[in-house]
This record gives sequence, C-alpha cells and structure tokens, in this order.
Amino acid sequence: MSDHRLTASRRSDVAPFLAMDVMSEAAKLEAEGRRIIHMEVGQPAAPAPQTALEAARAVLEHGRLGYTVARGLLSLRTGLRKHYQTTYGVDVPEERFMATTGSSAGFNLAFLAAFDPGDRIVLTSPGYPAYRNIIKALGLVPVEIEVGPDTRWSLTPDLIAAAQVDGPVRGVLVASPANPTGTMMSPDALSALIGFCEDEGIWFISDEIYHGLAYEEQQATALETSQNVIVINSFSKYYCMTGWRIGWMILPEVLMRPVERIAQSLYISPPELSQIAATAALAGGDELEAVKAGYARNRELLLKGLPEIGFDRLLPVDGAFYIYADTSGFSQNSLEFTRAMLHEASVAATPGADFDLTKGAGFTRFSFAGSFNDMKLALTNLKSWLG
Amino acid sequence: MSDHRLTASRRSDVAPFLAMDVMSEAAKLEAEGRRIIHMEVGQPAAPAPQTALEAARAVLEHGRLGYTVARGLLSLRTGLRKHYQTTYGVDVPEERFMATTGSSAGFNLAFLAAFDPGDRIVLTSPGYPAYRNIIKALGLVPVEIEVGPDTRWSLTPDLIAAAQVDGPVRGVLVASPANPTGTMMSPDALSALIGFCEDEGIWFISDEIYHGLAYEEQQATALETSQNVIVINSFSKYYCMTGWRIGWMILPEVLMRPVERIAQSLYISPPELSQIAATAALAGGDELEAVKAGYARNRELLLKGLPEIGFDRLLPVDGAFYIYADTSGFSQNSLEFTRAMLHEASVAATPGADFDLTKGAGFTRFSFAGSFNDMKLALTNLKSWLG
Repeated sequence: MSDHRLTASRRSDVAPFLAMDVMSEAAKLEAEGRRIIHMEVGQPAAPAPQTALEAARAVLEHGRLGYTVARGLLSLRTGLRKHYQTTYGVDVPEERFMATTGSSAGFNLAFLAAFDPGDRIVLTSPGYPAYRNIIKALGLVPVEIEVGPDTRWSLTPDLIAAAQVDGPVRGVLVASPANPTGTMMSPDALSALIGFCEDEGIWFISDEIYHGLAYEEQQATALETSQNVIVINSFSKYYCMTGWRIGWMILPEVLMRPVERIAQSLYISPPELSQIAATAALAGGDELEAVKAGYARNRELLLKGLPEIGFDRLLPVDGAFYIYADTSGFSQNSLEFTRAMLHEASVAATPGADFDLTKGAGFTRFSFAGSFNDMKLALTNLKSWLG
Repeated sequence: MSDHRLTASRRSDVAPFLAMDVMSEAAKLEAEGRRIIHMEVGQPAAPAPQTALEAARAVLEHGRLGYTVARGLLSLRTGLRKHYQTTYGVDVPEERFMATTGSSAGFNLAFLAAFDPGDRIVLTSPGYPAYRNIIKALGLVPVEIEVGPDTRWSLTPDLIAAAQVDGPVRGVLVASPANPTGTMMSPDALSALIGFCEDEGIWFISDEIYHGLAYEEQQATALETSQNVIVINSFSKYYCMTGWRIGWMILPEVLMRPVERIAQSLYISPPELSQIAATAALAGGDELEAVKAGYARNRELLLKGLPEIGFDRLLPVDGAFYIYADTSGFSQNSLEFTRAMLHEASVAATPGADFDLTKGAGFTRFSFAGSFNDMKLALTNLKSWLG
C-alpha cells in the first residue's frame, strides 16, 4: 500500500477565520511601517487588572506551577461563587463550577459531555464561527437559524419549534450580548427561551462571555431562570485577559462528572498561573469599570460618527464591543470590502462572512475595544476613503 | 416532553483517572497533618528554569497579553527549530511547528486532523490513559495491544500487522520513553516501525514528551526517519513546566493547515505568557541538566532499594521518571494496594489499572520526580510497611 492514505481527515475541513487573514495582512502592512487601526480583533487593548498582575508576579517569585485538579483551584471557584451572589443574586455551590482553558474549552467540553454524534444544535446566524466549527469537528450538526430585526437578532421559541420539524433539536446555544451583533436579549425573552428548551428536553447553553459589558439594559444570567442550563464564561473580555486563556463553566449536576472526566484527559487542567491571576482579577472592579467606561465613550463616538460618513445601517449595540454594520450598500463582498478598507484607509475590520454564511457578505464587524484616539482616527480615515 | 432527555452524552462515559482519586485521598490525609510522599504524579518537583521565570516576570511589567496566531509566536517556533538542529541534527522549517496548549492539545488536534470517526488507532497497553479516553470521546476506536518483556514493552511491525487482520489500522501512537513503563525503543526499532507504518499508509504519532530524560540509551526523534510523521512534545516534563500548559507539534505539510484551522476554533492560541516563558526555557540547559541528574540519583537509589524490600519485578527504566513494578506478588488489586500503601506507609503511587485495563491490576507506578530525601523516606516507610 502506498502513502496515499496519509491525508487529513474529512472533519478537519472546517472554515478558516477570515479575521485571521485580515490580521495577517495588517501585520504585513505594519511591518512595512504603516500605522493600522485594529478594529478586527475581539480583544481589549487594556492589560489584565493590577490585582491579577500582582498575584501573578507573587507566584513567579518561587515559580512552582503545576497541574491543578481538572475543575480548577478551589479559591477560584469560591471567588466565582461570590461573584454570582453579588452580581446576579444567585447562589451556586463551588462543586458546579469548572475552570476552563478559556471559553473555547468550555464549548468543547459542553458539546462532548452533552451531545453524541449526529445531534442537532441550534445556533444563530450571524454568530461566532468557532461554535459551528467545533460542532462540526465533533460530529454534531449545526442548525443555523438566520435571525434579523424582526426578532431583534435573537432566537425565539417559535424559531426553535420550527427547526424541530426537520428532526429533534438536542441543544440551543445563545450568546447575549452576542458576537458579532452586540445585541442582547431582554431578561424576559431569555427566560422564556430557556423555559421552552427545558420543557422540550433541549440543553440550553448560555454563552455569557460578554457579561459585564452591557451599556443600557440589565444583563441576566441563564441561572436566574434554571439550574438545568450550561453557562459558559471567560476572563477574556470584561477582565481583559484574552492571552491568559482562562474561563469557567457552571454545570447542572448531571454533567459535572462527565465534564470533569473528559477534562482530565483532554486538558488535565487550565494553566495554574492564569487560575491564580483570574482569582485576583475578580477584585479588579474599579480598574475594569474604567476600561468599560472607555468602551462606552468609543461606542457613543462611533454610533454618532459612523452614520455621518455613510455607515447608516447599524445593529443596536446593547453590549460587548462590536458594531455590526450592513455594508451591502458599499459592497456585496465584505471580504473584498474589508481588504480595500485595510489597504486604502488603514482600518482593519472583520468581514461578515466569518459570522454568517448566508448574508454575511453584506456586513462588516467593527470592534471598538481599542483606544478613543484610534476610534477618532478610524472615523477620519474612513471618511476620506469613502468621500 | 419532560426533561428526561437532559442527560450526559454516551461518549462522555470515559474512565476517570484513578491517579486523581489517589491525589484527592492524599490531599485529605495532608489536611489532617500527615506527611505524604508523592510518587503518584507525573510532574517534576522543580520549578520552571530561571530563564523562563525571568522572561515571564519581564512581560508582567506591562502585563499586556493577547491572543497570538494559532500556530504560536514565531520566536518560539524559531527556538524550537534550533533545538532540533542542535539536539537531533534535523532541520525542520518553522512552518511545520505548531505551539499547543500542552501535549494534551497536541493529541486532540492530531486525532481530529488525521482521523475520522470509526478509524482504528493502535496504542500500547500499558499506556497513558488519556490517549484512550480522547480517542473514544472523538469517535475513534482505540486498538490496545498488550506489550510485554518479549518485545521489551514496545510495538513491532508484526504486532501492527496482526491488528490489521481485524480491520484497517489508520494510526499508531508510540511514546519512547514511555509512560508508565519508562522503557525506550532503540533508534533502529523505532525507525523500523515508522518505516512499516509509512509503507502501509498508517499515520505514525510519536509522543516524545519524555525526551531529554533518557538515562542510558540515546533518544531518537521520529523525524530522523521520516518527515511524514506527527511529533508531539511538551515543556511539561524535561522543562519542568506542567502548570504552564505549553507544548508543541511538528507536522507533515499536509496536516499543517487542517491542524491550524481546527486550533483556531478549538483553542484560539496557547497562553501567550507560557509561549514567551517556554521560548526562554529552551536556554535553561544547565539548570535542567541538574534537575535531570537528580532524577538519575533517585533512579539509582530506587533500582537498588526497591528490590531489597520486595519490589523485585521492575521494568527496565530507560527514561522518563517512572518505575513500573509488577506488584501482583503483593496484591491482585493495585487500587486496593496503593490505597493501603497511602494510608499505612504514607506513600502515594498510581495503580496500574489506569494504564492497562487487562493486566494493570497487578502493577503499580512510582514516579521518582520528587526529591532525593523523599525517595529515601519512601524506601524506609515501604520497608517497615511490608516487613
């Protein structure tokens, strides 16, 4: 037999992130000396809070870092328990918290522990592309439901019920605030959707990674409605700790041991230093609220400035740090549009095709997690580019 | 419909690590004030080398850590390339290196990128239990081949050929030095096995995580034989960086993009601080050689001392920091045996059942990655326990 069988698997044929291509091209231009404004990456420009950095520095004095139990350090889980008591008024025992290597690990563990190959999982389109890719790689079936202004870019019980006609739905994944849209569900709408799923025996996965970054409405955790949900969160966004790769899950009791067993083999444990820094980050409130106030200023600037220069079809920006713009008036191909924007206006943004295979080509996502000056400069550049 | 469907998946029914149970029990005894000697965990007692700690401290001055590209920082991949030139005399371009969140991520990515559900992967038994668990969770079929003294605890082309009778074999996974046995394949035997796999169109996955820790024979990387292999390694063992969760893969070109695409969705990137520290750890040679010399002293002490007190059926300890002992003369149930050892002799060791579902109950694994004094104390305690 020849080595013709030494090929990649069929399931590895997932879509690459177009955002990464934009990042690479931006890096090339910067290497040539160009000043690029980064509105393509979903990560805060600010570092982790001082409380986190100090805790990490203290550990590095001795430097002894090892595996922890797969669930993560008890101190981190105790800190998270208090955070839920204070922030949402819900009390969940430490035993149901699981520290994860970023929310990426949370999704992978949730999908593996709750679903078997062939199971159908409902997602919104537009939505975070890694959901779809992980789901496919694990042999699950993503059922992407196009959402729009009629449901304020959210799923509803009716939409799930409609998807059930084609076959059983085993899971529903919702992010609020959402990526790329920045839209939020009202606490009532979220609660109604969770109740529907629970009644139907459908696992509800609540991606709460943008919690803490809501600008007008109050955010609600899925745990306020039910204890029979899977909550996934991370220190990456509000806590400005993307590069630390640390997040958490809150699980129903029935999934705790299955997730733990899989995590022991698949991750062993999240990075210990990140666990320690994250525990301390929970006390970084003032500094983090100042960062958030900066996002709020950026948001205000852009929501006023973008329409003035022609980006006049923007989704409501309830939370997170994204503006999802309908740019079909400029181009029907957002990959080409963002490439031109990068080369001609020095502004890097993400083509909507990453988030929505159907209608994404007419949309562009701008992240406003950068500095106020960068946002002003972006408006100036975009204005002269379009004008 | 009721919530009776809100259950765990079938594939989450993987075996827990018995070693973790031993760790938990040991922690309980320590909380009661008992002094426990840890020979159950496969992790160095020493911290990361000073070069790594200094690099990490320098980054924490500003604390700005973010996502990196999924492949990892170029500086890390350049450092690794030089490491292969110096250590093995092989030159692999940076493009074929991939930084991973520990070797755990390396295995997961290799399995996803190279194999589709139902594919049969050959493993040794005894072997590292996470292999089997990840393989099962991903819908692949582990084909565990019992190895013993007749093949010096290694796979051979004949054993693979025999496994092919029951159906095609798509992958072969070999660790040399191996966990739990500590045995190594000779460079010639390894090369012959790789050649056989390549001829048969079988992916060869070389787990080289214990490289750097060989006590008598010379270690060989699979890359000396073929570029069409998947090499997985980590900074956890030789570099004493378990808790940092940082490792690497070297991939054939055909798997590079598939692995990168999956990693973008499944991990985004390994922790940036760990990537920076790992790059610096490559220059930590003297310190790490001193740690290794400590293991060598421990090994000598135990290979002399254990037989004297009744552990007289030990596997050859070519590398790593494990002694795999046939303890069937003491007990046919190594879980009970190690529990009794923990409670009555204050020595924590790992039951063989973790590594070998068939014959493991008659074996016990001792890690000698601890201090020389702990090893001496262990011998004293075990002697009076058994005597």
